[in-house]
Amino acid sequence: MTTTAGPAAPTDEVRDLVARRVPGHTLEAPFYTSEAVYEADLSAVWSRTWLFVAHEAEVREPGDFVTVDVGPSSVIVLRDDDGVVRGLRNVCRHRGARVLTEREGSVGNLVCGYHRWTYAVDGSLLHAGDQAPDFDKGCWSLRQVHVRLVAGLVFVCLAADPPDDVDDLVATVSPYLLPHALHRTKVAAQVDLVEEANWKLVMENNRECYHCEGSHPELTCTFFPTWGIAPDRVPPRLRVAHERYLAAEAALERTCDERGLPYAEVEALEAERRTAFRVQREALDGAGESYTTDGSLAVRRLLGDLDVPRLGRASVHTQPNGWYHALSDHVVTFSVLPLGPTRTLVRTTWLVHEDAVEGEDYDVDALTLVWRVTNEQDSALVARAQAGVTDPGYVPGPYAPSERQVETFTAWYVARMQEHLAP
Amino acid sequence: MTTTAGPAAPTDEVRDLVARRVPGHTLEAPFYTSEAVYEADLSAVWSRTWLFVAHEAEVREPGDFVTVDVGPSSVIVLRDDDGVVRGLRNVCRHRGARVLTEREGSVGNLVCGYHRWTYAVDGSLLHAGDQAPDFDKGCWSLRQVHVRLVAGLVFVCLAADPPDDVDDLVATVSPYLLPHALHRTKVAAQVDLVEEANWKLVMENNRECYHCEGSHPELTCTFFPTWGIAPDRVPPRLRVAHERYLAAEAALERTCDERGLPYAEVEALEAERRTAFRVQREALDGAGESYTTDGSLAVRRLLGDLDVPRLGRASVHTQPNGWYHALSDHVVTFSVLPLGPTRTLVRTTWLVHEDAVEGEDYDVDALTLVWRVTNEQDSALVARAQAGVTDPGYVPGPYAPSERQVETFTAWYVARMQEHLAP
Amino acid sequence: MTTTAGPAAPTDEVRDLVARRVPGHTLEAPFYTSEAVYEADLSAVWSRTWLFVAHEAEVREPGDFVTVDVGPSSVIVLRDDDGVVRGLRNVCRHRGARVLTEREGSVGNLVCGYHRWTYAVDGSLLHAGDQAPDFDKGCWSLRQVHVRLVAGLVFVCLAADPPDDVDDLVATVSPYLLPHALHRTKVAAQVDLVEEANWKLVMENNRECYHCEGSHPELTCTFFPTWGIAPDRVPPRLRVAHERYLAAEAALERTCDERGLPYAEVEALEAERRTAFRVQREALDGAGESYTTDGSLAVRRLLGDLDVPRLGRASVHTQPNGWYHALSDHVVTFSVLPLGPTRTLVRTTWLVHEDAVEGEDYDVDALTLVWRVTNEQDSALVARAQAGVTDPGYVPGPYAPSERQVETFTAWYVARMQEHLAP
Repeated sequence: MTTTAGPAAPTDEVRDLVARRVPGHTLEAPFYTSEAVYEADLSAVWSRTWLFVAHEAEVREPGDFVTVDVGPSSVIVLRDDDGVVRGLRNVCRHRGARVLTEREGSVGNLVCGYHRWTYAVDGSLLHAGDQAPDFDKGCWSLRQVHVRLVAGLVFVCLAADPPDDVDDLVATVSPYLLPHALHRTKVAAQVDLVEEANWKLVMENNRECYHCEGSHPELTCTFFPTWGIAPDRVPPRLRVAHERYLAAEAALERTCDERGLPYAEVEALEAERRTAFRVQREALDGAGESYTTDGSLAVRRLLGDLDVPRLGRASVHTQPNGWYHALSDHVVTFSVLPLGPTRTLVRTTWLVHEDAVEGEDYDVDALTLVWRVTNEQDSALVARAQAGVTDPGYVPGPYAPSERQVETFTAWYVARMQEHLAP
Repeated sequence: MTTTAGPAAPTDEVRDLVARRVPGHTLEAPFYTSEAVYEADLSAVWSRTWLFVAHEAEVREPGDFVTVDVGPSSVIVLRDDDGVVRGLRNVCRHRGARVLTEREGSVGNLVCGYHRWTYAVDGSLLHAGDQAPDFDKGCWSLRQVHVRLVAGLVFVCLAADPPDDVDDLVATVSPYLLPHALHRTKVAAQVDLVEEANWKLVMENNRECYHCEGSHPELTCTFFPTWGIAPDRVPPRLRVAHERYLAAEAALERTCDERGLPYAEVEALEAERRTAFRVQREALDGAGESYTTDGSLAVRRLLGDLDVPRLGRASVHTQPNGWYHALSDHVVTFSVLPLGPTRTLVRTTWLVHEDAVEGEDYDVDALTLVWRVTNEQDSALVARAQAGVTDPGYVPGPYAPSERQVETFTAWYVARMQEHLAP
Repeated sequence: MTTTAGPAAPTDEVRDLVARRVPGHTLEAPFYTSEAVYEADLSAVWSRTWLFVAHEAEVREPGDFVTVDVGPSSVIVLRDDDGVVRGLRNVCRHRGARVLTEREGSVGNLVCGYHRWTYAVDGSLLHAGDQAPDFDKGCWSLRQVHVRLVAGLVFVCLAADPPDDVDDLVATVSPYLLPHALHRTKVAAQVDLVEEANWKLVMENNRECYHCEGSHPELTCTFFPTWGIAPDRVPPRLRVAHERYLAAEAALERTCDERGLPYAEVEALEAERRTAFRVQREALDGAGESYTTDGSLAVRRLLGDLDVPRLGRASVHTQPNGWYHALSDHVVTFSVLPLGPTRTLVRTTWLVHEDAVEGEDYDVDALTLVWRVTNEQDSALVARAQAGVTDPGYVPGPYAPSERQVETFTAWYVARMQEHLAP
């Protein structure tokens, strides 16, 4: 059988760049600007690691589907007739047309609109008109994409052999998220924001709060601005916030202990892990209940069987493309998807209890306010960084101590590139 | 004299792709997406073979011209003072400016708007201001482009030595078209449609009617949906249509025999022909007269000296870029022109008798309806195919038996690439 | 310390193109169209030679700044607390963000909006939050850009070792401009025009008036159309204009001699000069005073201490990117800045006496009319040339004798490329 040409071979340029990387400093410019590096990223990261792309709540019934673009690849996430969430390449096996052109919907079978080739929801080819007697339908099923579920979050991997350390992610993170019962949620809102920056700048921006002060007035009503700063390095002007943080943490731990909820920080971000992640339950500032401008609940109906609003945020981060906050009243998730060397999609989804009633239990504008404006503020910041690193006057600079997780992200990324480039 | 840099040398990537081609299957993705292949296409196909670009009816009088973009090349097609249709490169010999910037018009001489260099309609330089005494005007004529006429259709070839098998095209196709007297027509309408796909997907789409059912309701009022299907393979649901087709064919043959009109299928599509083509007169469904939603005439005035409306369609196809239907009341032609690796212009022209009066003998909307909407439907289909073949999840798929002419097109294209890449 | 990847190495293609250059003819197409040549231009010309980018009048007070994009490089031009005009790379040393995002303004310190790193107006780092004790602020100043002033015109050079033949420019040109007292002017108007052409076509267009007749009706009210034509080659139809020119020149020389103003032509355009220029005071047609449609003053207040309106134009040209006209009542300058292989910014600035009052001493529309429309006419002409040289049908053509300065520009450019490509 014919095979497609693979992606462009990693060029010597990319190899040299990776070899030259100096820990503790930002990456060199081509990592954020060059087409060759972007192609290598698609191979090394986006085609090999587990990616967060959707929620089970988006495909509740058999036949429900969403289509997600991971760079140039379109993936169909759908629930099959046995209730299993599957991933399929959204490419007809006949002449390559897109099978589904909608962003979401519900189908009985999958019918390509070009020549009516018809596939079952498990991807098998049911019908292709006008074929010779020796045509073997069994050879032309839609190509499968691996799927893994983490307490209601849908991860896919485009590789033939996905990294199996995803088991650690499932085992470790699930206990933090399960009390929020994502299986019994619905999507209250979903916002796609196109940021004018390389995907790595988007991720790096998310891994530090060094920029929060002055940039994120709405977020820092509840998000402690000391995030990422070692306790012994908190600057004098943040001392008061830090005291509040310590008190709120102590209260949160008592609440969690009473209910058996895990809250400890688990950091599994080592560069050698292909499925790297971090999880921790942390207190919020203000009323401490939710992401609102005073910290009080955004949704009257609590998630799952939770019986107390003040549970802070169970925050998860997964390399390379997701972060998540589970609160007592809603879950907000962020999926980062590359659109090109200097354009990136950030998809933000707010989930609430499936029985919560809009206009009664919650107001969408109020629910989404904090992260809508925070995302827009971040979008302006990363565009400013993208403009600067594109300048021939740019040279890599030093990370501050509170940017430790940015360094961790960068080191993880470089390890993936090294694996990809290894002979 | 200086020479321009030639187009980029064919890369090893293109060579490998061509060598790897598996007959009976769609081409690998880079044929539809890569810049390197597109550059090779411009050299191998668009700069070496005969291309359909205009009609004599567009340049009726001496000085009349149209300008046509063939990829990055602009060609002036004009009638000179001796009534000969000529082709000229639309590039001033002084500093390279476009000589003509209009799409069509009429001129006495050709005056470049930059420094007023003035050329005769045969391309010779008549005047260039402020020159040294040894300046030789004879060296700086506009560059000629070869032109060949086929019963009123204008073909050009950008090569220095155009393929001479164009003689077969002229000799074989002219008898089918001459009764429609394209010399005595005028342009009733011309529509340019930009399709978001590689030019080869546009051509492949045109070479099969496997997709017609369900996609082209207006066209299949008169275009038999059995087109391309071998008689012994017509599926049960199309049996009735096939019976109608056979009856209509028998009637058409009688009509043609009485008038000495040729109708036999002539297929000269072998890959080794540089000027490959196909011609056949075929019956239409419904009233059988014209491309309308009931098959009745769109124009009251018949073409040339035709005396009967029910003449079906004399349909011609020429590699790499044209197809044509001559009916008793009008001729509709399609010229495919590449705009880039993934954008293609389809120019559709409707010709009617020069004495037909708009609003009286024909209505432009009714005349153009079937192919206007069919083109738009096809445009959506090929965009869908382009999106899919760009996906890393795409692998070449198998042509169905009724896609035989798609395979023929692809084989012809691959032969041109092999010629171009030969040492 | 890490270093950025340099610009792409000059390809063999560029080397061959430069080696093949035939004097007396336009450049081959890739010089105007290819990405590789554009990258080489950025290195060979835009990163190595002195560039005209602003006026002292734009940064009058300490803290005043303008930001200028030179290709992908953003340069801050600002006046420091000692009154010195400085150039700084507009890239934060932390994570590369743009420090200033405004086109112009006034600051006390330079504060990056991302993580609040704060620099003094001399570029030194004053403050960076949350750093380890061994963080050395002295290592992270904004990078300096060399600045040179020519009688109020601001030139920058991005190279570490700028060409020192800029001294000749300063010494030779200053006496022509100083009487116009640019230090005591203000900006009356500034217009940015994006032209759809390679920067070299924009410069070449400016270096000849062979195209003026018929193209620039407003300009040729006062700009003698014989510019660039050797006296013994003036064509009959321009004989009358030439007689007027000779008479006006004689009168101008008397006026200048009485006041000690230099007017002689000095041409320092040899290809081996890195800072090449030309200066001459020349008469204007009509009233001979200013660039208006009848040649009379556009501004009632004369510049500096000038006491006579009829001073023609002190016209300066500097390679690679500026031309300038100093008149008795205003100065108009043109800064050409590349935006990409086929897009170029032309920034035109009109300066008037700092005490001239808009609406009273001058009308902005009347002041700017001639060059606004002339620029737009030129923009259409160079776009037409760009379209033509992109055509595979283009071959280099011969310069006319009156295009001598175009050849001089091209030779200078080729010399820069040769230097850049030398082993």
